[in-house]
Amino acid sequence: MREFDLLAHVFRQNPALPARVTIPPGDDMGAVRYGEHDVLVTVDQIADGVHVDLRSTAIARVARKAITRNLSDVAAMAALPVGAVVACALPRDFGQARARELSDAMRRVAGEFNCPLFGGDLTFWDHPLLISVTVLAEPAGVTPVTRGGARPGDVVFVTGQLGGSIHELDGYCHHLDFTPRIDLARRLAALVTLNSMIDLSDGLGRDLGHIAAMSNLAAEVDADRLPLSRAARHAATLDGQPAWRHALADGEDYELCFTVAVDQADRVPSQIDGVAVTAVGRMHACEPGAARVVVRADERRIPADDLGWEHHTS
Amino acid sequence: MREFDLLAHVFRQNPALPARVTIPPGDDMGAVRYGEHDVLVTVDQIADGVHVDLRSTAIARVARKAITRNLSDVAAMAALPVGAVVACALPRDFGQARARELSDAMRRVAGEFNCPLFGGDLTFWDHPLLISVTVLAEPAGVTPVTRGGARPGDVVFVTGQLGGSIHELDGYCHHLDFTPRIDLARRLAALVTLNSMIDLSDGLGRDLGHIAAMSNLAAEVDADRLPLSRAARHAATLDGQPAWRHALADGEDYELCFTVAVDQADRVPSQIDGVAVTAVGRMHACEPGAARVVVRADERRIPADDLGWEHHTS
Repeated sequence: MREFDLLAHVFRQNPALPARVTIPPGDDMGAVRYGEHDVLVTVDQIADGVHVDLRSTAIARVARKAITRNLSDVAAMAALPVGAVVACALPRDFGQARARELSDAMRRVAGEFNCPLFGGDLTFWDHPLLISVTVLAEPAGVTPVTRGGARPGDVVFVTGQLGGSIHELDGYCHHLDFTPRIDLARRLAALVTLNSMIDLSDGLGRDLGHIAAMSNLAAEVDADRLPLSRAARHAATLDGQPAWRHALADGEDYELCFTVAVDQADRVPSQIDGVAVTAVGRMHACEPGAARVVVRADERRIPADDLGWEHHTS
Repeated sequence: MREFDLLAHVFRQNPALPARVTIPPGDDMGAVRYGEHDVLVTVDQIADGVHVDLRSTAIARVARKAITRNLSDVAAMAALPVGAVVACALPRDFGQARARELSDAMRRVAGEFNCPLFGGDLTFWDHPLLISVTVLAEPAGVTPVTRGGARPGDVVFVTGQLGGSIHELDGYCHHLDFTPRIDLARRLAALVTLNSMIDLSDGLGRDLGHIAAMSNLAAEVDADRLPLSRAARHAATLDGQPAWRHALADGEDYELCFTVAVDQADRVPSQIDGVAVTAVGRMHACEPGAARVVVRADERRIPADDLGWEHHTS
């Protein structure tokens, strides 16, 4: 079974949702109205053996990722976090000390991002740790940026450097230690109109494919322009693939990909607070039967919307 | 490790929460403010082998419980549901057809209670099904009823009949098939001032203990007055315990326990829409070292706040 088949089935029910649901399933966050307020909500899971490995990863780092993974969704809407609730299924032999450490570390990380933990649920079982975090956010003066607003001609940008996020180099392992781009998204939203945005969790090829599909467009990316992380270059030395392929296909970058009308593209700075912001491609009309995302590399045009991954480990 | 030790540790951090958190961890739902709106939130998990057993329980029934369990928390605040997001860890061999059935059934049940599903997360792994549901609710004109508002002299009421919820009789199994008491709670709130309320998930003894502890009081319950379910009587025939003990100690009743000032107690009807509402005891000052909850049975007074359970199966 493929994850996206089931999700497509879910999304087909969206038209039946009440008007109070202002952002239906299929975006980085959903939203419901309370009076004049949009309450943005996202939920993400961290499973031991899938998204993290407790045998080799410290509890505090697992706790951090459980929180920041959701906050990356908040960044993708250009929203601000309000609070979070946590559901945790703990192995029965997890132990009191480690449970406290996990709880304390999640609260500390959430607090750093002004996202207080204000509720939760705890279950014990004989299976691996599974943490499910639900984050609430608010627009706070910036209209939430969805995936479906890209227009033909938009320039495609990405933040940071991409690829190889599972590789640890000099004590830094991006998929665990990344910083959700909340401040950066707010800064961008103040400078230009963000037509569409997504956070990169499944790989740029696949995630830009979501923007393209929801905007009923296609995208073309230039391999030479992709900002390569040190880890992407490292990964390329290991498997002999070109590094751009890691930047396009590897998951869990937790950077932002967004599109801006071409006449505003000059106003996007090349970096914000030391984080690179790079134009990597363009949106254009989708031709029937063509790939949603194409990468230009070595003078070839290669379909790239299925290079991404579905899960971190097999 | 005991669940409540870790929770007590979490609750000790409540004073550090920002003012925007209007109901901190420790109640049936937490709440954060959006302008003048209280956004109530609860999260609960359904794990295969802990809260349900997929070997013997139809998918639709599992889906139902995943939703109604949270809605019982909404009822306990006398609130109305607004929407829900669902995180699901599916066994890799679960199969497309069953996954759709699960998803469709959750959406159908949530829709019945005006609680549209508007977001989610999906993970596949090699372990049992775990569903985590987060429900958002709103006060809609009724101040949320917390656990900590009971006063000395309050009369303690319960809805429905209690005990034996795991036993299936004539095709009805209460812990799977119960109706969350959302309408009933709203009707009660319109008739009297509900000083405190909780939904019964851990057993009346333990849950009334939560009301007592958070209100800094004690409670006394009369065994003869406890409304016994048919399943409680059935359970008593199986293990030779008195049926009132099942009504007091068995978990997953998903009924409401609430307290009302004695001068308003007459205004509580003996049934609402065919659901019994029964006075079962009183709140009083807590004496140092005494049990939070005592049951009067057979002319004895028995400590009852530790008769409940922590988990459905061992």
